[in-house]
Amino acid sequence: MKSEISKALSDFLFEYETPRQVLVRNRRVGVVCRLIQLGVLAYIIGWVFIYEKGYQSTDTAVSSIFTKMKGVGYTSVNGHERVWDVSDYVFPPQGDSSFVVMTNYILTEGQQMGRCPELEGKQCSSDTDCEEGRFKRQMTGICVNSTKTCEVLAWCPVEDDHSIPHPPLLMSAENYTLFIKNSVTFPIFGVTRTNLVEGVDAAYISKCLYHPQDAPLCPIFKLGDIVKLSGFNFETIAQMGGAIGIVVDWTCNFDADVKHCKPQYNFHGLYGNPAETDQARASVGYNFRYAKYYLENNVQKRTLMKVFGIRIEIIVQSLARKFDIIPTFTAIGSGVGIFGVATVVCDLVLLYLLPKREYYKNMKFKYTDTSVQHDSELLGLDGSVYYTFEANARQVQGTDQSNDPDSEAGSIETELSNK
Amino acid sequence: MKSEISKALSDFLFEYETPRQVLVRNRRVGVVCRLIQLGVLAYIIGWVFIYEKGYQSTDTAVSSIFTKMKGVGYTSVNGHERVWDVSDYVFPPQGDSSFVVMTNYILTEGQQMGRCPELEGKQCSSDTDCEEGRFKRQMTGICVNSTKTCEVLAWCPVEDDHSIPHPPLLMSAENYTLFIKNSVTFPIFGVTRTNLVEGVDAAYISKCLYHPQDAPLCPIFKLGDIVKLSGFNFETIAQMGGAIGIVVDWTCNFDADVKHCKPQYNFHGLYGNPAETDQARASVGYNFRYAKYYLENNVQKRTLMKVFGIRIEIIVQSLARKFDIIPTFTAIGSGVGIFGVATVVCDLVLLYLLPKREYYKNMKFKYTDTSVQHDSELLGLDGSVYYTFEANARQVQGTDQSNDPDSEAGSIETELSNK
Amino acid sequence: MKSEISKALSDFLFEYETPRQVLVRNRRVGVVCRLIQLGVLAYIIGWVFIYEKGYQSTDTAVSSIFTKMKGVGYTSVNGHERVWDVSDYVFPPQGDSSFVVMTNYILTEGQQMGRCPELEGKQCSSDTDCEEGRFKRQMTGICVNSTKTCEVLAWCPVEDDHSIPHPPLLMSAENYTLFIKNSVTFPIFGVTRTNLVEGVDAAYISKCLYHPQDAPLCPIFKLGDIVKLSGFNFETIAQMGGAIGIVVDWTCNFDADVKHCKPQYNFHGLYGNPAETDQARASVGYNFRYAKYYLENNVQKRTLMKVFGIRIEIIVQSLARKFDIIPTFTAIGSGVGIFGVATVVCDLVLLYLLPKREYYKNMKFKYTDTSVQHDSELLGLDGSVYYTFEANARQVQGTDQSNDPDSEAGSIETELSNK
Repeated sequence: MKSEISKALSDFLFEYETPRQVLVRNRRVGVVCRLIQLGVLAYIIGWVFIYEKGYQSTDTAVSSIFTKMKGVGYTSVNGHERVWDVSDYVFPPQGDSSFVVMTNYILTEGQQMGRCPELEGKQCSSDTDCEEGRFKRQMTGICVNSTKTCEVLAWCPVEDDHSIPHPPLLMSAENYTLFIKNSVTFPIFGVTRTNLVEGVDAAYISKCLYHPQDAPLCPIFKLGDIVKLSGFNFETIAQMGGAIGIVVDWTCNFDADVKHCKPQYNFHGLYGNPAETDQARASVGYNFRYAKYYLENNVQKRTLMKVFGIRIEIIVQSLARKFDIIPTFTAIGSGVGIFGVATVVCDLVLLYLLPKREYYKNMKFKYTDTSVQHDSELLGLDGSVYYTFEANARQVQGTDQSNDPDSEAGSIETELSNK
Repeated sequence: MKSEISKALSDFLFEYETPRQVLVRNRRVGVVCRLIQLGVLAYIIGWVFIYEKGYQSTDTAVSSIFTKMKGVGYTSVNGHERVWDVSDYVFPPQGDSSFVVMTNYILTEGQQMGRCPELEGKQCSSDTDCEEGRFKRQMTGICVNSTKTCEVLAWCPVEDDHSIPHPPLLMSAENYTLFIKNSVTFPIFGVTRTNLVEGVDAAYISKCLYHPQDAPLCPIFKLGDIVKLSGFNFETIAQMGGAIGIVVDWTCNFDADVKHCKPQYNFHGLYGNPAETDQARASVGYNFRYAKYYLENNVQKRTLMKVFGIRIEIIVQSLARKFDIIPTFTAIGSGVGIFGVATVVCDLVLLYLLPKREYYKNMKFKYTDTSVQHDSELLGLDGSVYYTFEANARQVQGTDQSNDPDSEAGSIETELSNK
Repeated sequence: MKSEISKALSDFLFEYETPRQVLVRNRRVGVVCRLIQLGVLAYIIGWVFIYEKGYQSTDTAVSSIFTKMKGVGYTSVNGHERVWDVSDYVFPPQGDSSFVVMTNYILTEGQQMGRCPELEGKQCSSDTDCEEGRFKRQMTGICVNSTKTCEVLAWCPVEDDHSIPHPPLLMSAENYTLFIKNSVTFPIFGVTRTNLVEGVDAAYISKCLYHPQDAPLCPIFKLGDIVKLSGFNFETIAQMGGAIGIVVDWTCNFDADVKHCKPQYNFHGLYGNPAETDQARASVGYNFRYAKYYLENNVQKRTLMKVFGIRIEIIVQSLARKFDIIPTFTAIGSGVGIFGVATVVCDLVLLYLLPKREYYKNMKFKYTDTSVQHDSELLGLDGSVYYTFEANARQVQGTDQSNDPDSEAGSIETELSNK
């Protein structure tokens, strides 16, 4: 028993199967099939491997961002001069990846809790028009005669935001600079990079300014440039506010040296294309309200600011690629499969379209006989039965092909069915 | 030499290999194998291609979000009326994707730096119980007789947060509305969409309110609806605070028109299921402390607010699909491979399980002789040697199968081993 | 007609093709090929399936994070004692995933809008050195004699940030604790987990402190430990500020029980390795300016703080795997393809390198005749023509191989070409 197993094993080890093939010598089929095969090969090598780099696996990065604005703004409203430094015009102050640079504002000073008429809203003629309980304003139910509007419990005086200052108060924001520090880690490949790549050192940063062609790696951006590169007009966006995305694109190939992995900066408007006629679209501009609270004579007061500004979101987009054995073998393996499909297509041509299809069928196929299966219970006698059958089959057609001693059973079968 | 190469080349070009096959005509094997093959085909076409859309490549989006709350809250504490507008109850104010809506609070006014006894903590009977240096409180080392607690250097008076106002002070928060602006960009497919899709224009937004069935695309949400849809009870969450995730789901198929790519909004509780008995779990609710600083008579003071609120996180989840040649061919290629596995399975049945396995083996396999390899050095004489061997082999068994002129060498081999 | 179709269909259903193969009995080729095949099999099973878990599909999570700092800081500057609680030293206060813990600061109190000389910058000797309009400072065009610097319109007095307090004022920050609440959802697999996994309940949290070995699941971290584990020195980072990433790593296998899906916490410095000589690199440290505004005698004033601190970013990194039928079948399918490549390689050895290559070629290939194709118009007579040809071919070589009745047409062809 043991020796049988070891014999079967050594048989298995010393044997090797290879499929038998017909080598069809037909110019037309040959050329067609070789072209199909070459096409498949070109697709696999050219497209999958070289163009799409199918031998690589991919990874996206986890990233962290720190930003710092610089620059001083200046306003002169009604002869009242003011400068605005970073802690005045950036929200929030701590350097997040998403922040707002104030470019315009409506100031309502000295608000305190009280009752005052609304500035707008539906006109009222009597107190009955001002029922309590609407959720947008806290109504007191009194119609104020002088303004013909309802009285509300609110921070008074009520903010008047009907006219937005034009030109924007902080046009000087155009000259602010933004410094971006970005570090990305590709966890699968174990590579960490920062946007201060080789050559971008302290000396370079102290004097550079980003320019798409001349200084594409400088991490210091002029706000006016950012706006222009994203397709907006600075005065328009500064007045009404807007949102701009700065995409830091890390598309890296780690089969090359890691130092070629450099960021690319792209700029585009968020929430609607700047070119679009945004008037037709909903919700133009960007603004939010911000309050500074203080006590005056023991009364809680606040200064309300409606801030119009440029909201900047820094978005990191990353895709790294590196040679990996699994996608390589998957690509090869499925490429072999596609090769198989090419062969099937050629076979269809060969076996169904060519004039000599019957001949090729005979070459390609060998047929077992259907009649044999009816006595499949004859287990022990298998061998002799078949040979007997085949011999009989042979004899049937033996007369006209007696001088063809090496035709196969397959062709015999076909001959029979041809009759 | 050159002509030889060109001949080999033209030989290669005009030839074409196709595997030779046995066509087994056995009802049972045929049905079984065809069923297996049909199953594989159904899997590849039905599952991989139609159900899982294996002919498409996928992409996830980079996204940016802007939010805006609206609504006015009203509180009346000890006869002191107050309204709360957006700049009072939203933290941070600038419209981030993650923010807190205050629904309840504990106010400690007029705190200033000083020494005062702790409100809670271990009871002390003498100063020795109050050693200095514990890191949670800055102890002065004095045990205050009146309260039997240690004195600390702190913002005094110390906040008393033992009883959380119930019902929550800002129940009116239920009526606040949230407007979400979301833009997504699929970088690989180069498609940008906003949640203000076709049909969601300024006119529609001015009057719509999100409803899961009636207005699933309206980007304006009532806070009460958000809480209800995520499974919480508003009064409970408003009192203790809680966190809710709004998932904006962009599952898009870019083989269809891009206008069918629309967001879906889902709501769920973060950090623990609302249904769960969270008492057993750690850290119920959501709150943070927030201070407003002011100077009074040249003394720095602050108003401390312990803010309980609903923290809303807007999470963008995206998956776009589009036809791509590489996954298509990979699916086809590996499908062909699976077909090959089906054939192998059928072969196993055919060659090892069927009663007539020997017959099929003979049909399928052709054997080279093991004895031949011993004289593999006879390079030039290859052909004749083999044929001689085969002729001998033929003679051995020639007696009982003399009328079988077309059996192959393979079957001879088997006959020999059968003996 | 109908019966013909049903016959073709039943023929198709009851038939089954299996490739014919040569079983090469050659020890060397057999061993080589079996080894290659075993290698491929080992690669597919061992590497693709077991090591890389190629039978699983992957998913990344959407996550949300809530943080809470605890601890009280203490400073004593010029005999002026102060404590700092969470609302004083954390920016922003509401518990975001990215926040700053203040560890050092430069305070400039009582700033108000006015004109004052710059502290630094280029020396001036006369007013002409101070032209207006530079964007970094709002110049008034006056050179102040006493300081020899230009006068600017600014918040006065101007901040003096030349000497950063050393040792850092809030060294006690080392003892602050950070509590992280993190919930992740794997949308494709529909699994939601929080970092308060099984066993991490309220009782455990109330007394645990994270330790890499002893308490790797405790979600409470001492700030000093975080700094140490990320490779920084606390005093250095506390003085100048710095950025630390806390990576919450969810690498999960959902074929195992979901309760084994636990977070791992890793700590590393962001924006530059702590070990690096950061002096040479750009932009050391982390700081931002923060202003508290107040009114004094109706004059707007502010307290400016230059905050040095530890910016902590909590980054969730997730990769879940689960059995999926498509990657499984793709792996198997392309594995079969790779098997095909192994066979091709063996065939190349067999057909081009072995001494007896001609013999194996004869066994493997059957050739159709090239001359046949010239009379391909003889459609009806196909069968007889070929057999006649083959018979003729047979006769040509019949003399020396008359006792080989079962050699195939293929070998005949070769014989002919051998001549």
